[in-house]
Amino acid sequence: MGKYTEADLRAVLKEISLLEENQALLGWDSLTGMPEDAAPFRAELLSYLAGKSFELQTGSEYADMLTYFEAHPTELSDLGQQLVIHERKKYDLNAKIPAKDFIEYQKITSLAQDAWTKAREAKDFAIFAPYLAQIIAYKKQFIGLWDQGSAATPYDVLLDQYEPGLTVAKLDQVFGEVKAGLSELQAQLALGEAPDNQILSRFVSKQNQSDFSMELAQKLGYSLKKGRLDDTIHPFMEAMNRNDARITTRWDEHDFQMAVLGILHEAGHGLFEQNISPEFDYTPFEKDLAMSIHESQSLFNEVMMGRSEDFWRNEYPRLQAYTGATFADIDFDTFYRAWMVTKPTLIRTEADPLTYPLHIIIRYEIEKAIFNDNVDVNDLPALWNAKYLEYLGIEPENDLVGILQDIHWAGGDFGYFPSYALGHLYAAQFFNKMEQDLDLPAIFASQDYTPIFNWRKEYIWQYGASKTPQAILEDATGESLNPQYWLALQTKIYRKVYGLN
Amino acid sequence: MGKYTEADLRAVLKEISLLEENQALLGWDSLTGMPEDAAPFRAELLSYLAGKSFELQTGSEYADMLTYFEAHPTELSDLGQQLVIHERKKYDLNAKIPAKDFIEYQKITSLAQDAWTKAREAKDFAIFAPYLAQIIAYKKQFIGLWDQGSAATPYDVLLDQYEPGLTVAKLDQVFGEVKAGLSELQAQLALGEAPDNQILSRFVSKQNQSDFSMELAQKLGYSLKKGRLDDTIHPFMEAMNRNDARITTRWDEHDFQMAVLGILHEAGHGLFEQNISPEFDYTPFEKDLAMSIHESQSLFNEVMMGRSEDFWRNEYPRLQAYTGATFADIDFDTFYRAWMVTKPTLIRTEADPLTYPLHIIIRYEIEKAIFNDNVDVNDLPALWNAKYLEYLGIEPENDLVGILQDIHWAGGDFGYFPSYALGHLYAAQFFNKMEQDLDLPAIFASQDYTPIFNWRKEYIWQYGASKTPQAILEDATGESLNPQYWLALQTKIYRKVYGLN
Repeated sequence: MGKYTEADLRAVLKEISLLEENQALLGWDSLTGMPEDAAPFRAELLSYLAGKSFELQTGSEYADMLTYFEAHPTELSDLGQQLVIHERKKYDLNAKIPAKDFIEYQKITSLAQDAWTKAREAKDFAIFAPYLAQIIAYKKQFIGLWDQGSAATPYDVLLDQYEPGLTVAKLDQVFGEVKAGLSELQAQLALGEAPDNQILSRFVSKQNQSDFSMELAQKLGYSLKKGRLDDTIHPFMEAMNRNDARITTRWDEHDFQMAVLGILHEAGHGLFEQNISPEFDYTPFEKDLAMSIHESQSLFNEVMMGRSEDFWRNEYPRLQAYTGATFADIDFDTFYRAWMVTKPTLIRTEADPLTYPLHIIIRYEIEKAIFNDNVDVNDLPALWNAKYLEYLGIEPENDLVGILQDIHWAGGDFGYFPSYALGHLYAAQFFNKMEQDLDLPAIFASQDYTPIFNWRKEYIWQYGASKTPQAILEDATGESLNPQYWLALQTKIYRKVYGLN
Repeated sequence: MGKYTEADLRAVLKEISLLEENQALLGWDSLTGMPEDAAPFRAELLSYLAGKSFELQTGSEYADMLTYFEAHPTELSDLGQQLVIHERKKYDLNAKIPAKDFIEYQKITSLAQDAWTKAREAKDFAIFAPYLAQIIAYKKQFIGLWDQGSAATPYDVLLDQYEPGLTVAKLDQVFGEVKAGLSELQAQLALGEAPDNQILSRFVSKQNQSDFSMELAQKLGYSLKKGRLDDTIHPFMEAMNRNDARITTRWDEHDFQMAVLGILHEAGHGLFEQNISPEFDYTPFEKDLAMSIHESQSLFNEVMMGRSEDFWRNEYPRLQAYTGATFADIDFDTFYRAWMVTKPTLIRTEADPLTYPLHIIIRYEIEKAIFNDNVDVNDLPALWNAKYLEYLGIEPENDLVGILQDIHWAGGDFGYFPSYALGHLYAAQFFNKMEQDLDLPAIFASQDYTPIFNWRKEYIWQYGASKTPQAILEDATGESLNPQYWLALQTKIYRKVYGLN
């Protein structure tokens, strides 16, 4: 009998999972229904629970257990061995940093978020710059501690933390193809006929939007026995466990597209969580889903379905039925072309699916410049603005609608942005394979999307975080990431919308 | 420097409080919005947290700390000393029972609750009786362990756990007066003219009920910055902390009285929680409120306000305004008389405020018979039915609407019922004193209830559980519990409603 058994390992993982489940509910409540005066009490409770969780995950007993099983892997099941590898990677992320530096870094990111807010109010990056410089300095120091010398460049170390196995070399190639393809497509669309999307601002009541969108989400498989919808300011999905994955939305009665696509998007995240295999209950494989693959599933709902002509041809009559006479005078082609207007924006979160990847490529190139080329922090706004002009043809009139628009860097989240674009590319690659495996036109015509649900569950959802995104992609599609599927699909769709076929 | 400091004590109390706050939110969520399939995961999480909480509160280190401070009280502030006395009482409640018996007892109450459900389905007390007999046997054993020989009768020990200082001798006297007074009043009302309450079943939309009731609750001081309203099946108030006290209700669009009085009731509980002094944050004095005094505040809202003619004379026009033409043909006197109909019921939770105490007196007398006179469990249904016939003039046609209607005994909660009746009596005694201190007719006419809010906060709410209910009552009214205030008020009200003035 060894020092530890697999049951010991599973007991610790269960306790960590239970605390995460608990914190997830508190987080959901804070952003949906919590009374406003309760905020200081909630902060106190979350801080207490975070402390408990941190103790468990960084304690010497847990380290001892991981070390023991690394030396005695055969005492574990296959799943147990996978879990130890996964946990070791997380453990080292914290443990390799001296406690003193970790605490100091936490403090600076907290101050940086205040400074970011103030800088936004003043529309002045200079207020935020000194904090950002400190965060970058710490990150560079941490990269040296994390890296065993295997990373090709410093920025590779950060990419790997959000998307295991992803490299600068691969992203340079992928994003290079996307940029070239989009540049070519945009030149074509400029010659086409831009649709009129005025009809999207017609009044649709919140109740009608909700009824229609939730029926749509449920047709794609989102279960209200394992979820619910609430109002919030910045929409999100929060999963406590596979039987409790809640979505949120906001409403604008003169812009119903926002809630319809938003609900589809969050329900896509919810679908993933609701369909993780029960064998991963109370393990990190139900919690630590890579953001790229998660986003590929929200975007599959929002873009592959929610922007598909075949999908809407069958669902549009339902929208008309839900909204009385509102769209009685609008035929399907007019509706669909309005639905699909593409136009460059300064703000990433307001971008349409065609221009969205360019926002990410800009951030990727700037992050690479920071960590691999040591560009000066004070030069970043000019770099940002130049890239927006070059890639999107528009230039921010101030930092608020430019470099200050995202909170990510204030929290030290470098290497995270590429996941958003990967989500788009993965979704299209999955969709392309699905077109070969399934009779999609027949499925769309039937409005019974069960075969699509089953495909996604079989190839993607069930695995949770037990497989890397790349492994899921390759096993599902027989190929590693290839951005040409996304480019080909968008080219076909938008050329038609812009009357170029 | 002693072995422990007051900060050590406060740290443990804070951790216990944080866990209770957390469990309260999980409980609230389970009964309001949790998706149905999440129940098994929620049970697992609650069980984990209950274990943590139990460890903290029954651990030898905590016992050692309490013992230390009992020997060194002067090392604590006044508040610290009060907290130790309070915590010792709670500690002994668990610690004096052998762990083996405690576990066995927990198991039996769990089985008893299943048996109670089955017995209800079969309308047959005999299915529940053997489990109830076992629970009673354990309780009798525990009474012997808890009691230091100071209690006058075994049932006194149980009363004291819910209402510190309450005795059989006192309750016999109080309930005796209530029975006699009610018997006299009911004989009078039988000679009066019973109002027609058909108008109460007129359609009032859920939205109108909600808008009207929540405005009423807020006029009485309930703050939506520190609370919210949700739908549920069995209404309750749940407080996480003084800035987060949430109320719930159910709706019947053909019985708006239910939600109006229900919301007033739960908002009364919420008012208490929202106005406990901040000095008791993260101590048991914000959590361990005695049920009688808590209920006195929900009943103050529901009965002292919500059944008051002066109150409704001014609020009824608002109800009319909220409900369009619904009550345009109903003058105030007709409305108020309908609102106040009293009629005996078999079910406690459906009783009106006049007959309610009789339901409690029946349960009190039966519990006393069980613990002090060792009446046989199998004789209880006959005893129950005989008392309903004697006190309320109606007899249950089966056990479901008789002795099986309450879950309390299945959970071992003996000695709890009297608190409900005490709540009615306390509320009336507070109201009587308020009539002397404040110009109530002017306050009702102004519809600005701030002076009432301030009175309740000053004399009751701020203290939380730091004073016993009796101490609060005596300090606020200058007198110990006197049921004549309740009898006099009800006599005056109902004689008028029944046309006897």
